Amino acid sequence: MSPAATAIFSSSSSFTLFPLTSPSSTKAKPHISVANGRTLTLLGFPCFSFNYKKPNLLIRSAISIEKETPETHRPHTFLRQSDDDDAALSSSPSSVRSRFEKMIREAQDRVCEAIEAVEEGGGKFKEDVWSRPGGGGGISRVLQDGAVWEKAGVNVSVVYGIMPPEAYRAAKAAADQTKPGPVPFFAAGISSVLHPKNPFAPTLHFNYRYFETDTSKDTPGAPRQWWFGGGTDLTPAYIFEEDVKHFHLVQKSACDKFDPTFYPRFKKWCDDYFYIKHRAERRGLGGIFFDDLNDYDQEMLLSFATECANSVVPAYIPIIEKRKNIPFTDQHKAWQQLRRGRYVEFNLVYDRGTTFGLKTGGRIESILVSLPLTARWEYDHQPEEGTEEWKLLDACINPKEWI
Amino acid sequence: MSPAATAIFSSSSSFTLFPLTSPSSTKAKPHISVANGRTLTLLGFPCFSFNYKKPNLLIRSAISIEKETPETHRPHTFLRQSDDDDAALSSSPSSVRSRFEKMIREAQDRVCEAIEAVEEGGGKFKEDVWSRPGGGGGISRVLQDGAVWEKAGVNVSVVYGIMPPEAYRAAKAAADQTKPGPVPFFAAGISSVLHPKNPFAPTLHFNYRYFETDTSKDTPGAPRQWWFGGGTDLTPAYIFEEDVKHFHLVQKSACDKFDPTFYPRFKKWCDDYFYIKHRAERRGLGGIFFDDLNDYDQEMLLSFATECANSVVPAYIPIIEKRKNIPFTDQHKAWQQLRRGRYVEFNLVYDRGTTFGLKTGGRIESILVSLPLTARWEYDHQPEEGTEEWKLLDACINPKEWI
Repeated sequence: MSPAATAIFSSSSSFTLFPLTSPSSTKAKPHISVANGRTLTLLGFPCFSFNYKKPNLLIRSAISIEKETPETHRPHTFLRQSDDDDAALSSSPSSVRSRFEKMIREAQDRVCEAIEAVEEGGGKFKEDVWSRPGGGGGISRVLQDGAVWEKAGVNVSVVYGIMPPEAYRAAKAAADQTKPGPVPFFAAGISSVLHPKNPFAPTLHFNYRYFETDTSKDTPGAPRQWWFGGGTDLTPAYIFEEDVKHFHLVQKSACDKFDPTFYPRFKKWCDDYFYIKHRAERRGLGGIFFDDLNDYDQEMLLSFATECANSVVPAYIPIIEKRKNIPFTDQHKAWQQLRRGRYVEFNLVYDRGTTFGLKTGGRIESILVSLPLTARWEYDHQPEEGTEEWKLLDACINPKEWI
Repeated sequence: MSPAATAIFSSSSSFTLFPLTSPSSTKAKPHISVANGRTLTLLGFPCFSFNYKKPNLLIRSAISIEKETPETHRPHTFLRQSDDDDAALSSSPSSVRSRFEKMIREAQDRVCEAIEAVEEGGGKFKEDVWSRPGGGGGISRVLQDGAVWEKAGVNVSVVYGIMPPEAYRAAKAAADQTKPGPVPFFAAGISSVLHPKNPFAPTLHFNYRYFETDTSKDTPGAPRQWWFGGGTDLTPAYIFEEDVKHFHLVQKSACDKFDPTFYPRFKKWCDDYFYIKHRAERRGLGGIFFDDLNDYDQEMLLSFATECANSVVPAYIPIIEKRKNIPFTDQHKAWQQLRRGRYVEFNLVYDRGTTFGLKTGGRIESILVSLPLTARWEYDHQPEEGTEEWKLLDACINPKEWI
């Protein structure tokens, strides 16, 4: 009954790390999809798919990776021993991968603590920990049917895998014609979707991830590479302008500490990514989204991702505190449920991580923990112009500048 | 507010006819997807996609077709005048297309009447009629939030379109190397999804369709061709063996009137088609499903499709009458909602008509009328072995012979 597997899932981004197999189930299958339009499948199916931005370029080759093991305690680290040794031997600070893991695990703790504090005992996270003998693992936490949240998932995951050289070369458009062997990689991330009960309290999604190829420095044809990706976005059913403004201001403030171009650029990227094409509307009111970031200083981007993850609680929890107890009618709830239906549509139809995960055998419960507890579809529902429901829909159709 | 467009949709089959544009909306876009793995897009996007069983073979070429017009009355026929004349001039019975249209419209009337009779005034169908100047059109009927049904859609549609010669030639693997021009086609169908409120009353889906290329007989490289497709399947949340047996017996009885191999073959086809791969389970308890049928006598297949459509009411309504008033708990309702979630997953992730329709700009409300009014997703829900919920799940995982 208890799935010991966990995942970094990103229901709403292109980066998804799934556990290879649920220790308690032989059905669960792994996959990892990384970065913008590239998707990797590990085991379960013994194949590897790396799907570039060009939809027809799908490369498959064999890959092997160990099954994960359920753990009764959270280990100090999911990194391989060699990664730890590297850090210990050098006089430099710990490796980026080590510090990224530490950062996402602290962020997971902080977000879960903040949520349980708001729940005031009404809901508790259920935790599953797993590891893999050769390194990697994760911590999955899900709170369901709480006093304030209908469903809340906060997952971290660390994965070691191998990508075929063709994938790597195509991804980086390497001029070097030396044919490298399969390219090992490291990926770590945190991903979360938080669906509150009260229709005036918004849903939040965030996901921060780090990807690194694991070759020795300057391996011919496969130089070491890294990327950051992630974002935080807000999906209310009703607009409180002060809430949306507060949320975007916190995102902007995190961005502005690093680059004044970040917020406008990542705000637009977010509006573009969470687009439900068949509705011609966005899933929600956006936030920030970025992917494949490696054209800045690595330390700077690590700090930026950390700042973003640290901004989740101050961006979101004050809104929940204000809205969690607002009285509401069945009509308010029905509208929230309709918007939850849109959330389902986006995640099942468009989200790259979700759709690929479903089709390639990812662990289904980890992938679909992003779906709301309940959702609704009415035939041809169109809110009357000028109503609060209409205002939300209008803002999803015509993204606004909130600041 | 009122969409005058309608559709033959098939949330659960590979054949979908959508109106080209909602007369009341400039957003709605048309598409038609026909037969196993082949999908056509008409207008909206001025392109035409014909996707064969080989996923990489996607042919696009320009196509033009008129916008539809809302009608205040149902016309005698949606067929082109020339089709009617053909039938009138010949001494033979009316054309197959004419008789098929008559059949599906009668089936629509009969099913809607039967549903409203059970509703006893609790719910009424809302009708939208539309036509296209050059021929073709449809009647869409939706009943929502009734006394017995949560959501019920019954649509018929007639479409005239043009497919590129490459599509036609590839589809039929014509040995003849003469290059024909674009191939006109005719398609008509009825499609319906009925979601009751009571968790002990099952959901029903059915869809019957006829497709014909519209070339003059013996046009070089493009001989006239036709196909039938369709099916009826049952999706309960709880198993009453007598209900499932009754349902399958009616299907078998309809099949056996034509060919003793039909029921076993189409029953398996149904189990295979409605497979939710990422769950390793079927959407429901099956029924019959067939596609691309043209290797039997055309008159025989018309009679067979008619028999199947006529079997919907006797197969389904007696079950509803028995189960619509059974008292139920919140737990029963929650389980029904979880199964509705599976329905959503199948339709949004796997159903060829739905997924293609969404991605190519079909009329969204017509496509998604197949989705339930409400659905639910719980993290890692696993019914306890031996419970009624477990029995349903087991039957979805391991399809049974009900007769």
